[in-house]
Amino acid sequence: MIPLDRNSAVPLADQIESRLAAWVQAGRWPAGAKLPSIRALAAQLQVSPNTVVTAYDRLVAQGLIDSRGTAGFFVAGTASSAAIDTLLEAGEEQDAVWLVQQAHELRAGVLPASSGALPLSWLEDAIPASVVQRGLARGGGMASRCPPQGVPELRERIAMLMRSQGIAVDASRVLTTYGGTHGIDLVCRAFLHPGDSVLVEEPGYFLLFDRLREAGVRIVPITRRHDGPDLAELEAACIEHRPRLFFVQSVLHNPTGWGSSAANLHRVLMLAERHGVLIAEDDVHGHFHPGPATRLAQLSELRGVVYYSSFCKALSPALRLGYMAAEPALLKPLLRAKIRSVLTTAALNEFVLLELLASGRFRKHLDRLQRKLASARAAASRQLRQAGILLERPAEGGLFLWGALPSGIDVDLLVRDAYRNGILLARGAAFAADAPGDPHLRFNVVFSQHARLAAYLSQRLLAWSHAHAALSRVASPSTK
Amino acid sequence: MIPLDRNSAVPLADQIESRLAAWVQAGRWPAGAKLPSIRALAAQLQVSPNTVVTAYDRLVAQGLIDSRGTAGFFVAGTASSAAIDTLLEAGEEQDAVWLVQQAHELRAGVLPASSGALPLSWLEDAIPASVVQRGLARGGGMASRCPPQGVPELRERIAMLMRSQGIAVDASRVLTTYGGTHGIDLVCRAFLHPGDSVLVEEPGYFLLFDRLREAGVRIVPITRRHDGPDLAELEAACIEHRPRLFFVQSVLHNPTGWGSSAANLHRVLMLAERHGVLIAEDDVHGHFHPGPATRLAQLSELRGVVYYSSFCKALSPALRLGYMAAEPALLKPLLRAKIRSVLTTAALNEFVLLELLASGRFRKHLDRLQRKLASARAAASRQLRQAGILLERPAEGGLFLWGALPSGIDVDLLVRDAYRNGILLARGAAFAADAPGDPHLRFNVVFSQHARLAAYLSQRLLAWSHAHAALSRVASPSTK
Repeated sequence: MIPLDRNSAVPLADQIESRLAAWVQAGRWPAGAKLPSIRALAAQLQVSPNTVVTAYDRLVAQGLIDSRGTAGFFVAGTASSAAIDTLLEAGEEQDAVWLVQQAHELRAGVLPASSGALPLSWLEDAIPASVVQRGLARGGGMASRCPPQGVPELRERIAMLMRSQGIAVDASRVLTTYGGTHGIDLVCRAFLHPGDSVLVEEPGYFLLFDRLREAGVRIVPITRRHDGPDLAELEAACIEHRPRLFFVQSVLHNPTGWGSSAANLHRVLMLAERHGVLIAEDDVHGHFHPGPATRLAQLSELRGVVYYSSFCKALSPALRLGYMAAEPALLKPLLRAKIRSVLTTAALNEFVLLELLASGRFRKHLDRLQRKLASARAAASRQLRQAGILLERPAEGGLFLWGALPSGIDVDLLVRDAYRNGILLARGAAFAADAPGDPHLRFNVVFSQHARLAAYLSQRLLAWSHAHAALSRVASPSTK
Repeated sequence: MIPLDRNSAVPLADQIESRLAAWVQAGRWPAGAKLPSIRALAAQLQVSPNTVVTAYDRLVAQGLIDSRGTAGFFVAGTASSAAIDTLLEAGEEQDAVWLVQQAHELRAGVLPASSGALPLSWLEDAIPASVVQRGLARGGGMASRCPPQGVPELRERIAMLMRSQGIAVDASRVLTTYGGTHGIDLVCRAFLHPGDSVLVEEPGYFLLFDRLREAGVRIVPITRRHDGPDLAELEAACIEHRPRLFFVQSVLHNPTGWGSSAANLHRVLMLAERHGVLIAEDDVHGHFHPGPATRLAQLSELRGVVYYSSFCKALSPALRLGYMAAEPALLKPLLRAKIRSVLTTAALNEFVLLELLASGRFRKHLDRLQRKLASARAAASRQLRQAGILLERPAEGGLFLWGALPSGIDVDLLVRDAYRNGILLARGAAFAADAPGDPHLRFNVVFSQHARLAAYLSQRLLAWSHAHAALSRVASPSTK
């Protein structure tokens, strides 16, 4: 029985969370033990089910308990230190592929403070089983085949969604994909040749840089400002490198969370047109945007702009569907690239997504997510600042905070030490095409609101001067 | 009411089929009209439901009626002649991408006589909705994330399936994919560089040739014999071209349907090892094989062999899942290539497949398919021979018959004329890396057992000498 103080200024959810966290950390229950159901605990404590949901969500985000869908909540195991050592060794350089594997195979007990995704518990209600069932019935079941461009009715729904964001598009210009990474891959295959120059924003998405290296192109970084790419650098790079393509995240830029001003976007389009540069607009975080936003696809009406986005982040990683939009002359090579890469997308997934979009649930789901994200953002910002992180200019929303360490602190040492302490941080260098010493860290606003991270960072940053020698020994076994 | 002659030598299913076909072709019902349910018609005619299922299956295969899953059977529309003209113009060259699009966006009324797939109605019972529902519950629903290598329990099931085929493998050597084409893409990305030489079997799979052209490699065709690749040609090519890789379909080769002798496979492995050639074994038709078969993956125990197969053909095109197996040093670059192409596969699909494989239904489903395929093969062979097609040496099973036109008949003219008559045939040249005048056609044994194709071919092949001039005018509007 959890003792609650109903007269305290500490919210009931916080009281439940901290008591359960203490019990789990003290090993009161074995790993894998089932927690009381939300209803049962709410009834027992005489609180609303939402209060219990809030507490459980936070415990999941801390990695202390696991949510297993309808089966309920369970005490998480902890990664053995041997397993962590193996991972640590493999991942010392935090290369793109390693980071992706970490994110998808995270061990219980590790707090993914830099994660590029929401906690799965936030997405559990997004697509109920009844929607899957209706999607199956709609599409002719498991014996359906999906046209390579995508199911026409789904493309129509996606076009409607884009039009509601102000982008003029119809279903014939939409192509479905297996998500944002697949979109990047199709752009690279359709438009790039070895030796081409390609502009990217810096900082930016590590898997994009990795993919461009595979393509054998020359990567030219353009500094990202809070209102869009640096225009002087962009113009100089257009003149010097005659680039083929520019990858831009105009809304909720990863990792900074910054947007773009309409004036900046207008200038970017002018420069791109003048210098014959194709634009690939990455909008995979776009569904997290809380209000109206201007995008390159909107201003350009898709002239010279290939747009791609995804439902993996805000709706369901289990579906793994995304979409692209482009004018016909650009869509055709993208469709050929899709056929050559995967033949076509899965009809099951497309019919489930169609059913979900047709149900009208997506908008309500996004509204709920955005409210929860705003609250998480406020809490995480406060804690990180108190711990000594120098947060960059506020973002317009979304998943991320971008913060620097105080000068004199070695980001690589901190990242390794954090991992040894069960906290996965992604260092700034991973988001840079060429900036090995970047002092930033990306913080996920949901996972970074928890006391465990704040306590760790406060302790380490404060004690740095004393601990420096000790940390060096931990990180470099050869100096023993 | 269909009049049945129960004393006739003509089976009842044939009587029902021919009467319904005549009525649909005579326009007795409008396109989209619903046919009686299987149970209702069986009761009305006092025949077994299986008899009606057989008749309906054949009508679906002829393109005269459509199956819409649990909603029932409906009279098919016919493609307007304008639509056919547009398609014909676009597809005159039958390039790989066009053929894929045709297969996935087939219009009602077109008989896909060369199709690379089963009729969808043959797969409708393969994965019941209850399996999808249980798969969802198993995996934590739509908020699950799939590790890039694939869900471990699914990889374990796939390894069991492979071991039942005699291939020694465990889950750690298995990688899931979005199907056979994705497998080809990952092999190309992981192991090929522009300028490499790559051996392929000729004839072979058109999308493989298309993908290799994209990779900028030199394609070296090796003649396919009825017992495997031509060994003398293979050895000469190894010496002359120092190839990096050899793509082989050892079982149920597409398009011939031929297998390989164990002795041939042994020699292929010896040559590959001696000359340092990596082997990519394509087994995407392997589940159709009716009995035990020797594969390169089995003989080699995966040393120097990358194996890939798929569940798209024999189980469900709506899932679009396939798998690869390789030794660790080869699996690692394949996994990196998967992450770069699509990040990961969809957890929904993997959990549904896991549930299906765990249920034990797959083996029974394959047994049923193989019986139906054997019967279709016998019927199609008889009819095609009677129509004048010169069928090559019998295959060991699977989807295809490989037949040549009598000499003097222009395969391109026939393919175009057939398409104008609502029959989609794929010409031999599509299956050749470099053989534009190949006189063969690939026949799908299910779609080729129908009277409409036999009647068309008999008439055209017999009347060829008279019709030659007329056909030339049809095919070349410029000579009008």
